[in-house]
Amino acid sequence: MINEKMLALGESRSAIREIFEYGRKRAGEIGAENVFDFSLGNPSVPAPEKVNETIAELVKTLDSVALHGYTSAPGDMAARAAAAAQESLRAGYDIPAGCIYMTCGAAASLTITLNALINPGDEVVVLAPFFPEYRVFAETAGAKLVTVPPEGKSMQPDMEKFAAAIGENTKAVIVNSPNNPSGAILSADTLRAMAAVLEEKSAQKGSPVYLIADEPYRELVYGDARVPFLPGIYKNSIVCYSYSKSLSLPGERIGYIMVPPCAENAGKLFAAVCGAGRALGYVCAPSLMQKVAAHCAGERPDVDAYRKNRDIIYGALTEMGFDCVSPDGAFYLFVKSPGESAAAFCEKAKEFEILLVPSDSFGVGGYVRLSYCVAEQTIRGALPGFEKLAAHYGLK
Amino acid sequence: MINEKMLALGESRSAIREIFEYGRKRAGEIGAENVFDFSLGNPSVPAPEKVNETIAELVKTLDSVALHGYTSAPGDMAARAAAAAQESLRAGYDIPAGCIYMTCGAAASLTITLNALINPGDEVVVLAPFFPEYRVFAETAGAKLVTVPPEGKSMQPDMEKFAAAIGENTKAVIVNSPNNPSGAILSADTLRAMAAVLEEKSAQKGSPVYLIADEPYRELVYGDARVPFLPGIYKNSIVCYSYSKSLSLPGERIGYIMVPPCAENAGKLFAAVCGAGRALGYVCAPSLMQKVAAHCAGERPDVDAYRKNRDIIYGALTEMGFDCVSPDGAFYLFVKSPGESAAAFCEKAKEFEILLVPSDSFGVGGYVRLSYCVAEQTIRGALPGFEKLAAHYGLK
Repeated sequence: MINEKMLALGESRSAIREIFEYGRKRAGEIGAENVFDFSLGNPSVPAPEKVNETIAELVKTLDSVALHGYTSAPGDMAARAAAAAQESLRAGYDIPAGCIYMTCGAAASLTITLNALINPGDEVVVLAPFFPEYRVFAETAGAKLVTVPPEGKSMQPDMEKFAAAIGENTKAVIVNSPNNPSGAILSADTLRAMAAVLEEKSAQKGSPVYLIADEPYRELVYGDARVPFLPGIYKNSIVCYSYSKSLSLPGERIGYIMVPPCAENAGKLFAAVCGAGRALGYVCAPSLMQKVAAHCAGERPDVDAYRKNRDIIYGALTEMGFDCVSPDGAFYLFVKSPGESAAAFCEKAKEFEILLVPSDSFGVGGYVRLSYCVAEQTIRGALPGFEKLAAHYGLK
Repeated sequence: MINEKMLALGESRSAIREIFEYGRKRAGEIGAENVFDFSLGNPSVPAPEKVNETIAELVKTLDSVALHGYTSAPGDMAARAAAAAQESLRAGYDIPAGCIYMTCGAAASLTITLNALINPGDEVVVLAPFFPEYRVFAETAGAKLVTVPPEGKSMQPDMEKFAAAIGENTKAVIVNSPNNPSGAILSADTLRAMAAVLEEKSAQKGSPVYLIADEPYRELVYGDARVPFLPGIYKNSIVCYSYSKSLSLPGERIGYIMVPPCAENAGKLFAAVCGAGRALGYVCAPSLMQKVAAHCAGERPDVDAYRKNRDIIYGALTEMGFDCVSPDGAFYLFVKSPGESAAAFCEKAKEFEILLVPSDSFGVGGYVRLSYCVAEQTIRGALPGFEKLAAHYGLK
């Protein structure tokens, strides 16, 4: 008699969470130092020092009612201005603070944006591999999820299948670059090709197909990789951002939605975002964290710590003969499972106390995801096990 | 082509917000000290000292990843245990921490609970006067809102109409005690009578009608008024709590849902709550604030500051001949508008720079709401204007 969909969602534990729980159990049996858990994407570098300094300063100096009181629904004006300033740097032109709606993190950014857009019968297109919660968010907003497979190991979408997936009922496409789980970045060429398709299809149906950019990993990029400013390539883009990874604050639930001024009917779109935030119960984003974001929006994470981990694991596994997607960003390595199914490979890895996530829940088969936001010693400790796996599969 | 309902919600400013904005404009014209704005329910007392002390201590001592990292979806175990301990004190028996789901405040508690329960065709019953967002939350979850009028000035529900409102399709009843906007507390007698109706109707339909207790003002009570522990009166009660008012942290978005062990199928109900939180994009409640709640759940607000304001305003207005609901809790005074409509009374009050909210948006006509969570001088400054209003209406 209660809502069966919500019950099923609450009762189903994610594949990732199952593996994490196994890891905890195993750590209790053989010691944490002997379990090499690559299952969870929890940032392992501390927040930039300025974050805690700002918090300490704010509680010392700011009036309690001003610090902890309600902000307006779209957010504290200083937080919106700081976010707009970051987006302006990316855009190369001035994005007004009025384009920013502060949220309780990336998941809230996505659910609010989807609820602002979706009508019954609409479809939302995602590019595999994709974060499994996209399905939950899109379906809860009333949409049908349509998936587009990647073109081989590039993890760029198969453009023919992408064009075929966009139809009369498509309301939005979600992109996630750098990508969880593959670490791949959508190239400017890919995005331009996608934009051309979306413009044509929008013209055909007489209303925009929106591009929703889920960008929590935007600053976690290596070498000279850069994430393009999407509204510069396709005007009807909506940016969903979170400070979770850039400020290592995943539990604090702070991010924003940007509706760029170039979007068609941007004012109405922004109003619908405000309405959806209200309808879902998001009164305002956490006030203290909004003030932290106002002060620290320009801070950058210690990308080097992640880059070092990436270099060790990607270098070693490639050397051993594993076939890995070259990760340009985020903190995930996507490894082709040798010979068998991803699930079988994960089971075999468990024999060496290495915990990986099979790619099936991300919408593609035959890969495993490895989160390298872990201590360096976890990576180094796992390498002998990976050697044995490589030998087992007769790689090289 | 975007969602019209969300657009309408985003474009419609609430009556309260309209008046607040008028007050800001007027303050700019004649000086803030000459405007007596009783429109907003923003706590005016600072957070208990322990709150900011705890934050300062946590950022100094706790590891950044532990402090700002994800908690599990239902919350940090210490925060859940602290909430359960408070509920256990009220219950008189042990409520396990596993019954608590930490949320981003009362609005989130309500939207999550409603989405966990509601199926298409369901109805949600509210007792007028009620917080206007209940309609938004219930309708967004897919339910039809059914309202029950109060019985005269007691602000207890008309029990005959209450019984008639509960039918085959009723999934839940929301109660808010102490009440926004009237300050009234539902008496134990009223609640027992309601429980008897709900038990009978649940038996008739063969599944529970849930009682949802929206209790952010629970600790803001005066004299010997007490808010009964609802699951003790009706087992299928779900408690939606927020620390907004008790810790003066409304902007921080921290609260919880309690599914009591006595509720039918409590385990499945709790799982559906977890599912709804996930589906709406609430990954976890803000982590730092969860830790603050763990340390400060037993702190109490400075009720005396509100009580003093209440005594001044209730005493003075009653003395002048205004007909006021005696407020036993919260920080609202509900005043019967003399002679004319509530809107006309509010317009007249504006002439004396007194800003009140007409009761129509709360589901009853003929009253105004006055928020006395303001500085004492605002109340004292408004009294001459109220005298002139009383004279205008020929009271006494």
